[in-house]
Amino acid sequence: MSIGAIEAGGTKFICGIGNDNGEIEDQISFPTEHPEQTLPKVIQYFQDKQVEAIGIGSFGPIDIRPDRKTYGYVTTTPKPGWGNYDMLGILKREFSVPFGWDTDVNAAAFGEAKWGAAQGLSSCLYYTVGTGVGVGVYSEGKLVHGLVHPEGGHVLTRRHPDDVFSGVCPYHGDCLEGMAAGPAIEARWGKKGHELPRDHSAWEMEAFYIAQSITGAILLNSPEKIILGGGVMQQSQLFPLIRKAVLENLNGYVSSSVILDHIDDYIVPPGLGQQAGLCGALALGLTARDHQISAL
Amino acid sequence: MSIGAIEAGGTKFICGIGNDNGEIEDQISFPTEHPEQTLPKVIQYFQDKQVEAIGIGSFGPIDIRPDRKTYGYVTTTPKPGWGNYDMLGILKREFSVPFGWDTDVNAAAFGEAKWGAAQGLSSCLYYTVGTGVGVGVYSEGKLVHGLVHPEGGHVLTRRHPDDVFSGVCPYHGDCLEGMAAGPAIEARWGKKGHELPRDHSAWEMEAFYIAQSITGAILLNSPEKIILGGGVMQQSQLFPLIRKAVLENLNGYVSSSVILDHIDDYIVPPGLGQQAGLCGALALGLTARDHQISAL
Repeated sequence: MSIGAIEAGGTKFICGIGNDNGEIEDQISFPTEHPEQTLPKVIQYFQDKQVEAIGIGSFGPIDIRPDRKTYGYVTTTPKPGWGNYDMLGILKREFSVPFGWDTDVNAAAFGEAKWGAAQGLSSCLYYTVGTGVGVGVYSEGKLVHGLVHPEGGHVLTRRHPDDVFSGVCPYHGDCLEGMAAGPAIEARWGKKGHELPRDHSAWEMEAFYIAQSITGAILLNSPEKIILGGGVMQQSQLFPLIRKAVLENLNGYVSSSVILDHIDDYIVPPGLGQQAGLCGALALGLTARDHQISAL
Repeated sequence: MSIGAIEAGGTKFICGIGNDNGEIEDQISFPTEHPEQTLPKVIQYFQDKQVEAIGIGSFGPIDIRPDRKTYGYVTTTPKPGWGNYDMLGILKREFSVPFGWDTDVNAAAFGEAKWGAAQGLSSCLYYTVGTGVGVGVYSEGKLVHGLVHPEGGHVLTRRHPDDVFSGVCPYHGDCLEGMAAGPAIEARWGKKGHELPRDHSAWEMEAFYIAQSITGAILLNSPEKIILGGGVMQQSQLFPLIRKAVLENLNGYVSSSVILDHIDDYIVPPGLGQQAGLCGALALGLTARDHQISAL
């Protein structure tokens, strides 16, 4: 029997089934519309799949604390229909199997730790830089939840000396997301990222902001691997720029050869490529199944 | 029988014994000199104490990964005699009991989670702001180690608009420690912190930097409690300034009533007061004892 996986993104949903080895055996994708359009498609996909468990990595903010009444809800999103929406509850009423439930970026971090770039490690951070910026945190062998869940895309930034752009985050203006997500690039340069040449100064500036937040995260959490995914990170010229800026920022302070001598293996693209999110949801489903088995 | 506790600070060592309830039954303190002077005093103190286990919270950087050859060492400190020094090994040769070993700030975070301000929670951050700035990270019921260990005192900061001070960190100049530790206050204002009036503008600026790093840490890790200790935090007028600045920085983005409605209970002084570090070392010792018992 298979495990179900749902990557519930703000732009599109991906549903799939996979196995214990992290292999996706089938998948479909459709745009994220109003939940009354979207959830029936999810339910229909899994209707005849006979899955043992389902894992969901969802856009947020979501409630991932089982001790709260709104556990399983998408909470304060402005996305029409999704605010205060009981996504997990709706699906649980349809399928009486164990469910795993976490943020999309925590799921991706978990997938990468299980089968990807952080395999065998007990900590990693997964950044997605795209329409927004999100950060999944995996630490000491556990996904970090805490009070709400990590929201590391909104950390405050120090301004690049050549940057006069005010930022696009409606909450913070010039936080990381406000300065470095896709919409910020487009607003600052008048073009989408993929329309800018690879040697445009936009990329050094982009790397500056991303590297700054990574530096802070290295200092605070000391992760064993930093994984950078999302649409903006398809610009592969960013990786060497980010690595260089991180080393400059740290200035030798964190004296680990993993960082100082092997930065190319420390700050990396997802080992699972575009499947990091869906594989992560699969991993959440597997864990939910195994917890139920061990509780029997 | 009792548990031994060692708070190995850069300025002074505190050794004590305590019990399962977190009560310290006896303690002594002496200045941190060359290890050849200091360690014999530690050994002498515990010689006749018949402890079941010993926990150590140490100044750093230290090696806390058991899979490394230098596990138990103080590593790259410039402090004379302590660089690349096998503190844990020396003590293990004297006392054949289980040892707990972590950073001073992780120990304090652990003590606060067990008996202090974060009791019953599964996550907290412990900041010490004094001669330096350190951050202990407790997350999902575990102390965070990762690649090296947290070094959150060195996160980069955004400049206060009225601040032209260049910072005193030898690695980063104007990182958090460079801008907000005791020596930075003294260098910027020409007076020690305790010599400045409580309504001096120094405190608003100090709160600005501390709040900024706390905001980043809330966004990245979503801790359930933030505990602020250390000499500089004896200036209690800082707490309301920091809380206000954190709320302004977040601007409602993390919508949890724990933060938005109860910030006075969210950002707090240590519940264990000045004993947070020693109680934390005691907690490390207890955990080491219990691990050994469960392994038998």
